[in-house]
Amino acid sequence: MPIVLAASVENARILLDLFIMLAAAKLMAEVFERLKQPAVVGEILAGVLIGPSLLGWVAPSAIINILAEIGVIFLLFNVGLETKPQAIFQVGKRAVMVGVLGVLLPFVAGYFIAVAWGASFVESMFIGAALVATSVGITARVLGGMGLLDAPTARIILGAAVIDDILGLIILSLVSGVSQGGISYAGLAKTAAAAIVFTAFVGLVGSRVINRLAPFIQRLRLGRPFFTLGLILCLGLSVASIYVGVAAIIGAFLAGMAMAEATEENHKMHRMTTGVTEFLVPFFLVNIGMQLNLSVFSDSSVIIFAVLLTLIAVVTKFIGCGLGAFGMQKREMAQIGIGMVPRGEVGIVVAQIGLGLGVIGPTFFASVLFMAVATTLIAPPFIKVLFARGNDDPMKPEIEIDISDEFSRIG
Amino acid sequence: MPIVLAASVENARILLDLFIMLAAAKLMAEVFERLKQPAVVGEILAGVLIGPSLLGWVAPSAIINILAEIGVIFLLFNVGLETKPQAIFQVGKRAVMVGVLGVLLPFVAGYFIAVAWGASFVESMFIGAALVATSVGITARVLGGMGLLDAPTARIILGAAVIDDILGLIILSLVSGVSQGGISYAGLAKTAAAAIVFTAFVGLVGSRVINRLAPFIQRLRLGRPFFTLGLILCLGLSVASIYVGVAAIIGAFLAGMAMAEATEENHKMHRMTTGVTEFLVPFFLVNIGMQLNLSVFSDSSVIIFAVLLTLIAVVTKFIGCGLGAFGMQKREMAQIGIGMVPRGEVGIVVAQIGLGLGVIGPTFFASVLFMAVATTLIAPPFIKVLFARGNDDPMKPEIEIDISDEFSRIG
Repeated sequence: MPIVLAASVENARILLDLFIMLAAAKLMAEVFERLKQPAVVGEILAGVLIGPSLLGWVAPSAIINILAEIGVIFLLFNVGLETKPQAIFQVGKRAVMVGVLGVLLPFVAGYFIAVAWGASFVESMFIGAALVATSVGITARVLGGMGLLDAPTARIILGAAVIDDILGLIILSLVSGVSQGGISYAGLAKTAAAAIVFTAFVGLVGSRVINRLAPFIQRLRLGRPFFTLGLILCLGLSVASIYVGVAAIIGAFLAGMAMAEATEENHKMHRMTTGVTEFLVPFFLVNIGMQLNLSVFSDSSVIIFAVLLTLIAVVTKFIGCGLGAFGMQKREMAQIGIGMVPRGEVGIVVAQIGLGLGVIGPTFFASVLFMAVATTLIAPPFIKVLFARGNDDPMKPEIEIDISDEFSRIG
Repeated sequence: MPIVLAASVENARILLDLFIMLAAAKLMAEVFERLKQPAVVGEILAGVLIGPSLLGWVAPSAIINILAEIGVIFLLFNVGLETKPQAIFQVGKRAVMVGVLGVLLPFVAGYFIAVAWGASFVESMFIGAALVATSVGITARVLGGMGLLDAPTARIILGAAVIDDILGLIILSLVSGVSQGGISYAGLAKTAAAAIVFTAFVGLVGSRVINRLAPFIQRLRLGRPFFTLGLILCLGLSVASIYVGVAAIIGAFLAGMAMAEATEENHKMHRMTTGVTEFLVPFFLVNIGMQLNLSVFSDSSVIIFAVLLTLIAVVTKFIGCGLGAFGMQKREMAQIGIGMVPRGEVGIVVAQIGLGLGVIGPTFFASVLFMAVATTLIAPPFIKVLFARGNDDPMKPEIEIDISDEFSRIG
């Protein structure tokens, strides 16, 4: 390679990584679609395959991590664009029930299984906390791909995910406090209040503000004013929600929801947003798969714990959230239960926080990572089956309808 | 901020940077549109404003750099999608003439002005080389915004930019060889041959391969097969071209051109690509502006040299490329000349290579950076005027027609 390239070799390596990730993800997506399995599972497995555990072609890095985060942020923004605030408010009470029960059961069960396995008090609390966090991006991706984001149960899942995230923040603050030698109840109350006030305020007021501003936005001279404003709002509220303490995706979802009514008929904007999502979401999915570290599983007791933790994570979330939807049809309860199962990147982040604070050992960390990735792989096939419309073959290919109700296929 | 956020604070800072960059870019774009000036100039100036030189809100970083590079890559991919190979081949000879003369004049002039200013032989060679590199992204952005990418002179500019890049590589290899104590003519020939063969092969064969594969692509099960394949091809050829020695944008442009015929009627794909471009190009533009380091200009002789270098860069490129189009109308010659003036990120990269090799001092480096940014700011208003259609007011607002011939505006 010519010497003159010194300056761009660094970027070339990153672009090569992105190329490998995208190509692997899409190859696996194609394979899984042909096997009538969810594409997301294929894309996550692509990450396991090319990641450090197996082929070692690509390693997680800060840059991949930020692209993955922007990917899931835009995924939730896109979901928000399809979700009018009213649709969430209507199911508000039920979403709260689903969120609360779906947090309590996994936390308690996670805590006790860890204690039984010999983990310390603080370690067990952290493992419990890691079991709480739902990664709604995965479910939203599958349901969006099926064109079912407007289903009543899908709305309950979206609402419950917001509640879930706020409760997760409170539990994590609590557990972190304990691990650092004491809880500041005033600080905790402040954290909780900030998260709740921010979410409620943006959720309630955002849409009205955008609807009011719509005529002015339309008159802007810069190209594609709604899309441009959407990008800025999405990034802005994502950052704001991190500073408030909740996940960036909550802010992105609220940003999308705020613009849902004003841009309902704006198909071009939806398509452009879909372009960003389709480009970046594969990095999010592959990055989850790459987190899996299979080398620590040489010890069989670690394998057993990891599998057990995964089972408990699946069962308690399924039952907890399902019970939260008590009174609905059994199929709907199951839909909500399974939709909340994936822990994905949120579970990984909690485990990383525990590792960073030095309160969780490397094998428990590996088990939590396994649980986060495994729950994310297990749920989508069941989501597809349980949400399949009609009574004929639930796997039939018509479910490929896309988030913004369009195909890119020619003709 | 709650302790639990430790893990996401890093990402939060980056997301905040991106938010500031995007918001500043679009605010300035709006202001410049209202002043009937090119939006790109506003977006670059936004970078000067928020960058280290003035407000210091955002500093260049590896992550911003890669996002900027992906941005300009997709910009050229998008331009390629609008460009059928035949359209470039038709103007091939003229593009070669424009490319060659547009390289020779600035190189020679840059070399001599640097020698006159007391720079060493190698340093002067590098400054000459930095004056060679045209950043076609800026011109493509302005012409795309005017809906004029299909103008004959626009095609000549695109073709000449490819020639320009290959010649720039050869000159840079030569100069680097000299600076490292000797030229390997065999190595140089190999570098040049690889670049020429790669570009010619992909340019000639790419489109036919994609056209042949189109029916198979259409039958893929994964969502949005053409868009997905486009993303993969764009990244893949960008990486390949860096390894071959030419700029990533050349590969991206060839990737787009390869898909131009097969996806001509695929408006959804074009819109999704536009979504990616619109999201990422502002980072490319703001990043150029942020490179400007005004603090070294406390010395008035540095200012004088930087301004002189800029003037020479503008004049020699304008005359060289204009002469290359000899025989066309004067207005067309001027269009081609001015379209090749911006040096942008390519000039910056050459200067950085020189700095990295230790053959260019900090004040000459600063002057080259100034030249790269200044030529990029100077050209767009003239491009707008010279390309304005019709004989009435050349600044009339109808020129806002967009790359993929669409508005995101409601109604």
